[in-house]
Amino acid sequence: MADRILLAHGSGGKLAHDLVQKMFVDVLGNPILAKLDDAAVFTASGRLAFTTDSYVVTPIFFPGGDIGKLAVCGTVNDLAMSGARPLYLSLSFIIEEGFPQKDLEKIVNSVKEATDEAGATIVTGDTKVVDQGSADGLYINTSGVGLIPEGVDVSGGNARPGDKVLLSGPIGDHGIAVMSKREGFSFSTKLESDCAPLNDMVADMLAASSNIHCLRDPTRGGLATTLNELAKQSEIKIIIEEERLPVRDEVLAACEMLGFDPLYVANEGKLVAVVAAPDAERVLNAIRKTRYGKEAVILGEVVEGDSGRVVMKTHLGATRIVDMLVGDLLPRIC
Amino acid sequence: MADRILLAHGSGGKLAHDLVQKMFVDVLGNPILAKLDDAAVFTASGRLAFTTDSYVVTPIFFPGGDIGKLAVCGTVNDLAMSGARPLYLSLSFIIEEGFPQKDLEKIVNSVKEATDEAGATIVTGDTKVVDQGSADGLYINTSGVGLIPEGVDVSGGNARPGDKVLLSGPIGDHGIAVMSKREGFSFSTKLESDCAPLNDMVADMLAASSNIHCLRDPTRGGLATTLNELAKQSEIKIIIEEERLPVRDEVLAACEMLGFDPLYVANEGKLVAVVAAPDAERVLNAIRKTRYGKEAVILGEVVEGDSGRVVMKTHLGATRIVDMLVGDLLPRIC
Repeated sequence: MADRILLAHGSGGKLAHDLVQKMFVDVLGNPILAKLDDAAVFTASGRLAFTTDSYVVTPIFFPGGDIGKLAVCGTVNDLAMSGARPLYLSLSFIIEEGFPQKDLEKIVNSVKEATDEAGATIVTGDTKVVDQGSADGLYINTSGVGLIPEGVDVSGGNARPGDKVLLSGPIGDHGIAVMSKREGFSFSTKLESDCAPLNDMVADMLAASSNIHCLRDPTRGGLATTLNELAKQSEIKIIIEEERLPVRDEVLAACEMLGFDPLYVANEGKLVAVVAAPDAERVLNAIRKTRYGKEAVILGEVVEGDSGRVVMKTHLGATRIVDMLVGDLLPRIC
Repeated sequence: MADRILLAHGSGGKLAHDLVQKMFVDVLGNPILAKLDDAAVFTASGRLAFTTDSYVVTPIFFPGGDIGKLAVCGTVNDLAMSGARPLYLSLSFIIEEGFPQKDLEKIVNSVKEATDEAGATIVTGDTKVVDQGSADGLYINTSGVGLIPEGVDVSGGNARPGDKVLLSGPIGDHGIAVMSKREGFSFSTKLESDCAPLNDMVADMLAASSNIHCLRDPTRGGLATTLNELAKQSEIKIIIEEERLPVRDEVLAACEMLGFDPLYVANEGKLVAVVAAPDAERVLNAIRKTRYGKEAVILGEVVEGDSGRVVMKTHLGATRIVDMLVGDLLPRIC
């Protein structure tokens, strides 16, 4: 049992301390975390962004990532979508008794790799262990604090008629990659989750234009749900064009087989930006120059009237209403 | 099923949005949360404290509180123990499919009540739903951001020989109250969890003395583990006196029956303070004037030598080594 997580690892006692030191502090090591006080302390000044997400994805390891990478990228991206530079993250585990220590180690190493890429630091954490049957392996919560540079004002409520709607790349990769692993089917080509930190992309976009009105990453509920959120928050209408919508062939094929609509499938490394029309091309080019934005497109635009509605011009020239996700298309996708 | 949480409530789609609005925004309502952007935005300047904890207590409702109250108090107290004034909290749920909406509502109301008392605000949140059997009812993560006033320097590493060790009241109430409910035994008198926000107590202590060196709340692992942490971090020895140790009769009785040592039983509304000797009485009086500190005591002192060790002078005049908790005395106590 020495290679498994025990209830005592969550007791706050000796085993818990050893685990924290060996598994977390030694791997994620930095002077703030190493202090092991009840709270991390740092100095900051300005407009701060603060966000939280719990991650319950199944399976824990999937093509293109694992729950550790996802937990960092998801929270880093939520900070980036408010225009913030991610600085400090918390890392909290709920672990089912009996979970292999080796898997935990892999996950912590993924956390380390993703935070390094994002330029963020894990400064505080927590570990709880629950009895067998009271969780499904391991759940992670990350919260994050970031700094919003002076002059940046990005919010879901800022879209205005005339703005262009940009999308940073093909949709549905994460949802289909996780689903394929869960259901045990495979593709002739390799499909991986797009899970990635987008803070560098956002920094380059903000450097290219001071007229970026909204940023959002289309995770749970997919692109359709995100566009609906923006349309509702900004009280505008969004029109997108189907022929501009990037979707990989493997994703399309899997969606057809499973009866999914890629518009509703989760992404973990894509963003939607609403940008003032005169700056749209410049921002598009900035996105395309980044590591995760080579397939970015201008997908549509913001118009007046029909407040809160999203419509898509189809290949055939018809107009289809794109509603928010209803039901549970893909449970535990993040 | 309309009164139960469904998988779709965690999908990010329509049901999720309705739940967030009705259950969270309407109850916890404040302008920052109501924006519903990916991250909350606020302005801050100075030394900030940042902390996280996941809560997996069973049962979810226990004498003196519930998981919602606990999740707020625990994180507020972690901030307070770094000397910070709690400002902003995040609230993240992992809910098992089928959980009664009524219970969730009760829990959110407890969250509201506790944050109001602590003067903190829930500014961001997340809800995940997992399939039946993949969680035990409901788990909560709260993270928090607080501001450390100028001149305050509290850390587990700051204890010095000659300092006095203060304890804000009787130990073991939380652990025994939760355990009694879990195991279904009752007391002739009413024993409740001490679960409470301690930030007002800490503010009054800091106003009374600028020589408070360490603050820590003895939660998981109990008083013994907390004192050991302080002794190790500060590389000093701590001596406490058994005859000064406040323990309620019901707690003692339950501990004897169950074979527990109250020194290792969790508290959720108590703090340990290490204070420069000349200020100890003044700080003690400040604690005793607060709502949750009427039974505070000076429990012992910090001495040189035997770095990292905690000892207790017993009623009989003997000296007993008080080690850190080993094993899993009370799993899922917080």
